[in-house]
Amino acid sequence: MTVFVRAAEGRSTSKIGVEKERILQQVSAQRISAWIDRIAQCNATPGAGCSRFSYSKEDRLAKGLLTDWFNTLGLQVTVDAVGNIRARLSGRDNDLAPVCSGSHLDTVSNGGKFDGVVGVVSAMEAVACMVDCNYVPQRPVEIMIFVEEEGSNFGMTTAGSKTLAGMYGEKELSALKNDQGMSMYEVARNFGLHPEALSACTLKSGDVKAMIEMHVEQSMVLDDAQIPIGIVQAVAGGKWYWAHFTGMANHAGATPMQMRQDPMVAAAQAICSFHELVKAKGPDSTVGTVGRIDCEPNVSNVIAKHVCFTLDIRDVDSAGIDAVANELEALFFRVAAENHVSWRLELIGESQPIRLSDKVIGVLREAVESAGLDYMMLNSGAVHDAAIMAHITDAGMIFVPSINGRSHVPDESANIDDIKLGCQVLLSAMLELSAS
Amino acid sequence: MTVFVRAAEGRSTSKIGVEKERILQQVSAQRISAWIDRIAQCNATPGAGCSRFSYSKEDRLAKGLLTDWFNTLGLQVTVDAVGNIRARLSGRDNDLAPVCSGSHLDTVSNGGKFDGVVGVVSAMEAVACMVDCNYVPQRPVEIMIFVEEEGSNFGMTTAGSKTLAGMYGEKELSALKNDQGMSMYEVARNFGLHPEALSACTLKSGDVKAMIEMHVEQSMVLDDAQIPIGIVQAVAGGKWYWAHFTGMANHAGATPMQMRQDPMVAAAQAICSFHELVKAKGPDSTVGTVGRIDCEPNVSNVIAKHVCFTLDIRDVDSAGIDAVANELEALFFRVAAENHVSWRLELIGESQPIRLSDKVIGVLREAVESAGLDYMMLNSGAVHDAAIMAHITDAGMIFVPSINGRSHVPDESANIDDIKLGCQVLLSAMLELSAS
Repeated sequence: MTVFVRAAEGRSTSKIGVEKERILQQVSAQRISAWIDRIAQCNATPGAGCSRFSYSKEDRLAKGLLTDWFNTLGLQVTVDAVGNIRARLSGRDNDLAPVCSGSHLDTVSNGGKFDGVVGVVSAMEAVACMVDCNYVPQRPVEIMIFVEEEGSNFGMTTAGSKTLAGMYGEKELSALKNDQGMSMYEVARNFGLHPEALSACTLKSGDVKAMIEMHVEQSMVLDDAQIPIGIVQAVAGGKWYWAHFTGMANHAGATPMQMRQDPMVAAAQAICSFHELVKAKGPDSTVGTVGRIDCEPNVSNVIAKHVCFTLDIRDVDSAGIDAVANELEALFFRVAAENHVSWRLELIGESQPIRLSDKVIGVLREAVESAGLDYMMLNSGAVHDAAIMAHITDAGMIFVPSINGRSHVPDESANIDDIKLGCQVLLSAMLELSAS
Repeated sequence: MTVFVRAAEGRSTSKIGVEKERILQQVSAQRISAWIDRIAQCNATPGAGCSRFSYSKEDRLAKGLLTDWFNTLGLQVTVDAVGNIRARLSGRDNDLAPVCSGSHLDTVSNGGKFDGVVGVVSAMEAVACMVDCNYVPQRPVEIMIFVEEEGSNFGMTTAGSKTLAGMYGEKELSALKNDQGMSMYEVARNFGLHPEALSACTLKSGDVKAMIEMHVEQSMVLDDAQIPIGIVQAVAGGKWYWAHFTGMANHAGATPMQMRQDPMVAAAQAICSFHELVKAKGPDSTVGTVGRIDCEPNVSNVIAKHVCFTLDIRDVDSAGIDAVANELEALFFRVAAENHVSWRLELIGESQPIRLSDKVIGVLREAVESAGLDYMMLNSGAVHDAAIMAHITDAGMIFVPSINGRSHVPDESANIDDIKLGCQVLLSAMLELSAS
């Protein structure tokens, strides 16, 4: 559900304190833009989108630049057992739980330069504006940079925030393997981190006052409507599968149609049926994707032996996910029987939809309404670290438009003016939440 | 069409001369089997089927062994401009056009050890039996070994026999490229051959009296019927395509279903429709296969940007090929429009069905009937060098059963006793054809 809210006339300065207004005016589009570009230069695939995997030399380079900047700002920087970074601006009472904001620096392979980075840079800019104005909040304020959000190394999204939030321990980190068979635990240790000290870094409920993540929308809803700000109500959960069909490889020219056991035909039928199922069964918010397919031996004149592909089902409503997921076995059984092939459906991950904090949503709405901005209430189809942090704190999200809705691709883009507005909303909410 | 012919009672020795019978008795299952195994040892993928591409070191090794054997037999060996080998047993009148038999040594990637090799080894065995018996035919007899039948290097089947038969010249050889972008012309030259001398090696109509290729059936018709010998009436022609769908890569979680331009769904729908089209439109002999599919970026959480796949349509009746091919554009247009993606269909090869020589078929029928063997008249769904040689000579083919019909796979198999019987039929026909 998306709700569009047209701004009231003009900016209501009456609701914003003079000091707060002065800090908000410090937000610099030019400084934000320069940081986005600087981080984009830490890139393993220049000219072919941005590839910056966690635990790579590009990741180390980017984090080095940011750590220098945090030191310049006088922040207290800590790196946890798996590489999540927290940079803290002291408050007047440092015994109070901090207000946090941030996102991730890792990318998909050949992705864009805004995904994740916008949230990291906006959190940095918000804190930098407080420092510029010599503003000391009542509570500490923290920038958080999560590792391995995209799952590019280990095939599992948000592994960094899951570790910070105590959902992943040594066992889970040891089970997550990259393509070379090395676990996240080993890779983190080889990177110079101390995954064995994990428990000392874990956050519990109450350790953080609130967490706000700003992000590009990664869809076309805001851009289509020409609305600069989205406030997220819920983050989709999902179920992820590998689907396998195994038949009988044989000569493409010499094997009569009725004697075939062709897993490619089975796969194609299953992908079509899955697509129809998602469209027919799910509510509007349900999405289903087959983004990867592998065929063996994958030769034009040989009937395939084995075809496998991924299924990605997501919804902000778990009923939508289940409506599709519950039909899959019957679908695969039918398609496999029809094509005389065997099948296997392997659930490789699932997550529940997350409702974000009404309290934080209220603060964000007040911030955009005070600023006189048009905004939309919407949902996130993509997974985000904020949805993980929602398990231990009041979490919220701000979306800014993705131009043409493009994301996870080299030409992912966002308007710097929208990012500046989003950063001002973020800063306004952080000031509000950290003021008491 | 397959016609099963039950053998008459016992072997009719009256029809076979005493000398011919003596030569046929020389055929040695043990020698055939040893050669098949020896050639299989020239293999780039031991333990994972047989991979022996033309112009590889495994190809050079196998051909070295055979050339030594040809020299031992006292044959005159020539290697043509692209590596086709001809080994000639002199006849009484060497001005007469030779009777030829052979096949290919190259394999698909991780294929079997019988495809092609059975035909090469049987031709060798037939000639060896003549030599063993000090038999001098009226006409010369030749073993032919064709390069690059499978198209494993350059994506085009029977490139060697097409060159020998004068259908490919320097232009065509320069246009055939391997995955590294090198042409067959360049690769042959780098292998030590002389493709620039091509025209001197080309065969014209009348240069060869007859050509017989023995081959494993690569389908299950003979094995199902438990018949040891097939005589081929026609070889399927075909059309081969690359099909492309290009859509819009985007985030799998954040892009609503109705806003997608997903080429994977289009590809799946097209593969299903193609399969239905082949089954519905074609006569029984029409086959259609999608054996290869490639997706970009091929990542589970990204809607694909581009999906392409191969289409392989074959039939011994060109009406069957056309019935499917003529519908493809409409099919792709419809599927692309439905999914808001663009499409491209690229014809990469075609060949006409070939009727084999009634004269050679007659000689082969006489040979099996004289031997008292059960046999079948059938068609070949697969392309073979004999079908290319049919453009310049009277060509025929003998099939022996593929166990369970498996071919182009590591567990491709054939019964050595069937191969021996096939070799005796081949030898009998060669003796008949070379006797005058």
